[in-house]
Amino acid sequence: MTRYAALAAILRQRIEQGLYAAGERLPSVRTLSLEHGVSISTVQQAYRQLEEHQLVEPRAKSGYFVRRPHRVAELPAVSRPVQRPVEISQWELVLELIRSKPRNDLVQLGRGMPDVSEATLKPLLKALSSNARHGDLRSLYYDNIQGVASLREQIARLLLDSGCQLDAEQLVITTGCQEALSAGLHAICQAGDIVAVDSPCYHGTMQTLKGLGMKALEIPTDPLTGINLEALEMALEQWPVKVILLTPNCNNPLGYIMPDARKKRLLMLAQRYDVAIIEDDVYGDIAYSYPRPRTIKSFDDDGRVLLCSSFSKTLAPGLRIGWIAPGRYLERVLHMKYIGTGATATQPQFAIAEFIRHGHYMQHLRRMRIRYQQNRDLMTCWITQYFPAGTRVSQPRGGFMLWIELHEEFDTLRLNRCLENQGVQIAVGSIFSAAGKYRNCLRINYAQKLTADVERAVKQVGLTITQIMQSQSEPVKQMGFSAPE
Amino acid sequence: MTRYAALAAILRQRIEQGLYAAGERLPSVRTLSLEHGVSISTVQQAYRQLEEHQLVEPRAKSGYFVRRPHRVAELPAVSRPVQRPVEISQWELVLELIRSKPRNDLVQLGRGMPDVSEATLKPLLKALSSNARHGDLRSLYYDNIQGVASLREQIARLLLDSGCQLDAEQLVITTGCQEALSAGLHAICQAGDIVAVDSPCYHGTMQTLKGLGMKALEIPTDPLTGINLEALEMALEQWPVKVILLTPNCNNPLGYIMPDARKKRLLMLAQRYDVAIIEDDVYGDIAYSYPRPRTIKSFDDDGRVLLCSSFSKTLAPGLRIGWIAPGRYLERVLHMKYIGTGATATQPQFAIAEFIRHGHYMQHLRRMRIRYQQNRDLMTCWITQYFPAGTRVSQPRGGFMLWIELHEEFDTLRLNRCLENQGVQIAVGSIFSAAGKYRNCLRINYAQKLTADVERAVKQVGLTITQIMQSQSEPVKQMGFSAPE
Repeated sequence: MTRYAALAAILRQRIEQGLYAAGERLPSVRTLSLEHGVSISTVQQAYRQLEEHQLVEPRAKSGYFVRRPHRVAELPAVSRPVQRPVEISQWELVLELIRSKPRNDLVQLGRGMPDVSEATLKPLLKALSSNARHGDLRSLYYDNIQGVASLREQIARLLLDSGCQLDAEQLVITTGCQEALSAGLHAICQAGDIVAVDSPCYHGTMQTLKGLGMKALEIPTDPLTGINLEALEMALEQWPVKVILLTPNCNNPLGYIMPDARKKRLLMLAQRYDVAIIEDDVYGDIAYSYPRPRTIKSFDDDGRVLLCSSFSKTLAPGLRIGWIAPGRYLERVLHMKYIGTGATATQPQFAIAEFIRHGHYMQHLRRMRIRYQQNRDLMTCWITQYFPAGTRVSQPRGGFMLWIELHEEFDTLRLNRCLENQGVQIAVGSIFSAAGKYRNCLRINYAQKLTADVERAVKQVGLTITQIMQSQSEPVKQMGFSAPE
Repeated sequence: MTRYAALAAILRQRIEQGLYAAGERLPSVRTLSLEHGVSISTVQQAYRQLEEHQLVEPRAKSGYFVRRPHRVAELPAVSRPVQRPVEISQWELVLELIRSKPRNDLVQLGRGMPDVSEATLKPLLKALSSNARHGDLRSLYYDNIQGVASLREQIARLLLDSGCQLDAEQLVITTGCQEALSAGLHAICQAGDIVAVDSPCYHGTMQTLKGLGMKALEIPTDPLTGINLEALEMALEQWPVKVILLTPNCNNPLGYIMPDARKKRLLMLAQRYDVAIIEDDVYGDIAYSYPRPRTIKSFDDDGRVLLCSSFSKTLAPGLRIGWIAPGRYLERVLHMKYIGTGATATQPQFAIAEFIRHGHYMQHLRRMRIRYQQNRDLMTCWITQYFPAGTRVSQPRGGFMLWIELHEEFDTLRLNRCLENQGVQIAVGSIFSAAGKYRNCLRINYAQKLTADVERAVKQVGLTITQIMQSQSEPVKQMGFSAPE
């Protein structure tokens, strides 16, 4: 990272933490230059970057000020899903989304792809090619069913950052986080069992429940603090829940980080009702703050938490390398892993282990955290600018997804059909619910470089939404675009 | 392949097809030199190779003769498994086998690993490294959930060899054949369902049934012609079988190729009783004869056969690239594939597609067919030489596994414990049965270069078997080492 970008990141953080309030005067260029031991022009560049991202504004002869947002979008409402276990539908819509592959003529805002074009990933490409180039035949064979030992050791080291003290023997490498979730669920539950989930909930999780014949019990979820513990407790009281499955850190799609105190309370609930917890931490390493947030697993003292993650969001999804720390369910998970895929591909395991060992992983994370945070701000700007007034937007604290809530009568399926011919793809909200709720919501990915093309695409989405709303029947229009309760 | 090796291969085939019978005089060096347009020394080299492999013997002033085997091992008996659906056990033993990873101090005769050290694989290593080296970011992303299109096209082309006319859209790339089997089973069956299998049966299949809560109905199987159709029909009559799961080509562990007529009859049975067939063809491409045997799928006219395979036995298992042609179950299999692993790793798909497109795959197969066939002969020699009289040995027509049947009272679990400290690993027979039959059998892998070390290991296994037999109680000894019925 360049000096000015580093300084900009520091200033951004202070603004976000409220150290400098909206409208407040920021330190002078000279003060910052002295404070940080950088040149005047470096400070000026940093301010220019913040200005571009619409965080600060210069005022003639007075310096820089924290910008008052033109219009702050409200947060999405606390979700109110059906309070009973339901079977999962929506497979056709998910299939439509995941069948698409990278295309030059399509701005893909729908899928959960990270950006893989940063220079900090280059050592990984090198590591991937060097095993094969040097004719290392180890990578052509199966390795240990539990995964390559050196990679498990490196992951154990990384896990310390999230408060987890685990050793390599307690980890199983999987074919992406999806296999971790699937093997974890399969190890604990049978067809017909009830799984409590946060809501909205990642569509891969939902479809896994569907595939395994389980039922989802969607729990109301707050867009800032996560799953509602009171509602969860009532659900545990009322239904024979087998597992609580959730994404407490940098939630997909809502982006919140559940406060530690709530994580602990959730664990206590699970202990009281003797249910397992499957914790999806796949975005946890790209929280915008450092040190990264703790996992529920880090508080687990009786092995009931199965921590699932992968390198698909932090490095590259095409490698299909994930892991699970299954606690007391290790052997059953290993069985499920074996019958699912036999073993995980060997070569990418060696390559990632090498990448982490040489410090490249942490370096890459530092870069991506800043990149994604900047993108969040810019994308939020665009949404508030181009989408109709009343649009509600999440405030992610990590990851690279925005959850957008439109008027409660709005149908994003219809939006998606209209966008098909316009070269833009979004993820419709209904796939994040077991029974197709959140039809008035959509998820937008802001991982990629936010070029003029992407801005045009977002503008196009906003315009199409406005057109659809205008074309809707008079009664709906009269209701106005008030927020749903 | 060198000229002499090619000639040796032709002669070997003629001997095996019975064109030249045991004890018969072979054509003179001069005759062969004229017939094949090669030099005298080439013919001599070919004969020398056959002599090394104990297939021919020179007699002074008379030329070469087809060697009479010292002692021809009998075939294993037709299996007689329990004739009712049973739950599967043996996971601990399978885990013990698969947890081992390549080690220099261990001669691994137990696992299903191919040899990956042949020069014909080099273009694959090159392809694997070049994507990454050239910074091709495509391979870092997810591709199509169904798999990379160019690879599916190449596989569709290869499938023509087995009589299958399928297009790329009918194929799904999987994470190894294991995911193909698992997704196929999961797409059709539920917990509690009955699956008919050949017996002995690949332990991965058995454990998949266990993991999915299904029951195995093991059908008697002939070591030369495969699953007994009369017994299968009785089973279909008696039990509500959902799927027939079998490996008709180059069966693992028995090595037979089911005759085409029987494949057709089996398909008719499946149609009559309206059950699906899951056909594991993972060794089909390394049948020793060319053109390779047809699949049951090639006769399928109503989409009830799910053909599963991979490149794990033909190229390299560590790549974890397989595929399934799921017929009428395509969409359900796609769902199971999605929840199992999300997608299959991208880079190895591109690399394999390139490897096939340039003709390297067929070249590699030609090489490996000959290598494995030679190894089979040598390994069979060693077994008959070093194992106690009465040992029964399979006669594989493809793949790289020998199935060895010892005295019916013999316990290979005990053998395995003894071998643990002797640096040799075998696969015990009981993992090839749902409920632990075949304790008197073992499977030996002959894929690797059959060096003096391997010979020593095989000798050691034979010696240990003899010692155990001698140490066994008197009554057993008195029973002698007669073959089980």
